[in-house]
Amino acid sequence: MLLIGERINTARDEIRDAVVARDAGTVEAEAVAQRDAGAHYLDVNCGSVTMEEEPESLAWLVRTAQGASGLPLCIDSPSPAALAAGLAAHDGKAIVNSISGEEARYAAVLPLVKEHGSSVVALGMDDRGIPGGGFPAFDVGAALVERLLADGLAVGDIYFDPLVRSLGTDPEAIIATLELMARLGEGYPGLHFVTGLSNVSYGLPERRHINRAFAVLGVASGLDAVILDPLDGVLTALLFASEALAGRDRFSLRYIQAYKDGRLAV
Amino acid sequence: MLLIGERINTARDEIRDAVVARDAGTVEAEAVAQRDAGAHYLDVNCGSVTMEEEPESLAWLVRTAQGASGLPLCIDSPSPAALAAGLAAHDGKAIVNSISGEEARYAAVLPLVKEHGSSVVALGMDDRGIPGGGFPAFDVGAALVERLLADGLAVGDIYFDPLVRSLGTDPEAIIATLELMARLGEGYPGLHFVTGLSNVSYGLPERRHINRAFAVLGVASGLDAVILDPLDGVLTALLFASEALAGRDRFSLRYIQAYKDGRLAV
Repeated sequence: MLLIGERINTARDEIRDAVVARDAGTVEAEAVAQRDAGAHYLDVNCGSVTMEEEPESLAWLVRTAQGASGLPLCIDSPSPAALAAGLAAHDGKAIVNSISGEEARYAAVLPLVKEHGSSVVALGMDDRGIPGGGFPAFDVGAALVERLLADGLAVGDIYFDPLVRSLGTDPEAIIATLELMARLGEGYPGLHFVTGLSNVSYGLPERRHINRAFAVLGVASGLDAVILDPLDGVLTALLFASEALAGRDRFSLRYIQAYKDGRLAV
Repeated sequence: MLLIGERINTARDEIRDAVVARDAGTVEAEAVAQRDAGAHYLDVNCGSVTMEEEPESLAWLVRTAQGASGLPLCIDSPSPAALAAGLAAHDGKAIVNSISGEEARYAAVLPLVKEHGSSVVALGMDDRGIPGGGFPAFDVGAALVERLLADGLAVGDIYFDPLVRSLGTDPEAIIATLELMARLGEGYPGLHFVTGLSNVSYGLPERRHINRAFAVLGVASGLDAVILDPLDGVLTALLFASEALAGRDRFSLRYIQAYKDGRLAV
């Protein structure tokens, strides 16, 4: 289970202020706290600063977060220019977040992924939008994975994001999302699945319970990377437990290691 | 989701002492605390007092727990004599815990269930023991359900317990248990599924995480009654969330009601 820390995102006011002021200390503290809580990657996103500033800001975030934590990053922007700047500032193998089946985005992001030998988050959508009744999500997802493979990516470098909808908007979509991951996982052994957790609970109260339960169900359907707040120890402990229950942690060794590392004492 | 409180059980030292001393206050406090935490039924079990005393002790527990809480009870004993005494002391419709496909137990417990118009926990085992490779769990479970139906029970009065094994002993059995519930649920619409949560984590550290994750997975496979500690608010909140995610809580109404009742503030 790859834990990708979500906290360095300018959607949070304190991060936005830190990016605007180039306050490295705040970003460094978030980076170290997430690493110490067990994050394997840190997502960095400054999408809410102005578009002109985003490449330079993202490069600064990359240097700051990676410099403090020593972790590889998940470089998060819809903007190819920002991704390019972030990747240039990054040391080692990053995850590019994200590519999709949208033609313009695919054409602009693929060369960056290949140039830097990165992994990539692949959003299960294309120019028609997010799959619905008219064009099945499986077909959209399979076409995108096939295209990435044909363009030379290794299956293990692809993190497919099934774009879960909110439970409040479309309760049936939850089960469909789980089935989509299970089916794509059967079709493409080695394909990774990633999701954020917050969309699923949008509009509902006390969202963390929905997010946590969805994470458990996701793991049982093949989810093996989660963009989350690694400081939610109840959630990360559930993820370790879910992997063991789903048969993906032989002899529960990682669960027991997490216990020894003090990560289950919540 | 039926929440069955597990705390009045002489496997806990304080309950054992209370039963031996006929200390009603301790039992009453546990009964009220569980009711106030949202339990719908209370399991009462005094299996660890001596066998001669069990019928009288169980009847006392039934009167005490039900008198204090006003809740119906899940009367828990392998002993038909104790079940008979407990049922005689109970007001309203109880759940008898439990019957199984073992011939002697079936023959002794069925008349009690019918006489009192109770619901019943049906353990998925027979005289060969708990199903394993030699005799499939589905066949054992289906045979038991068929027999109970043929003997006049309504399907909605049967709570099938798939007897989950511990993750540490048999990791593959977890997925098999989930599949068993899903398959029996398809075969017998209206059949309930119940389980305790503690077996699954036996031998592992910080067991609550395993128990909670298993509960979430169980709900997605049809589990609709859980014998649990209702004072574990993280667990009960996860159960509400799981039912909504599994499509068993239309418009998330019960989740939202749980929020309004203050049950999600953990």
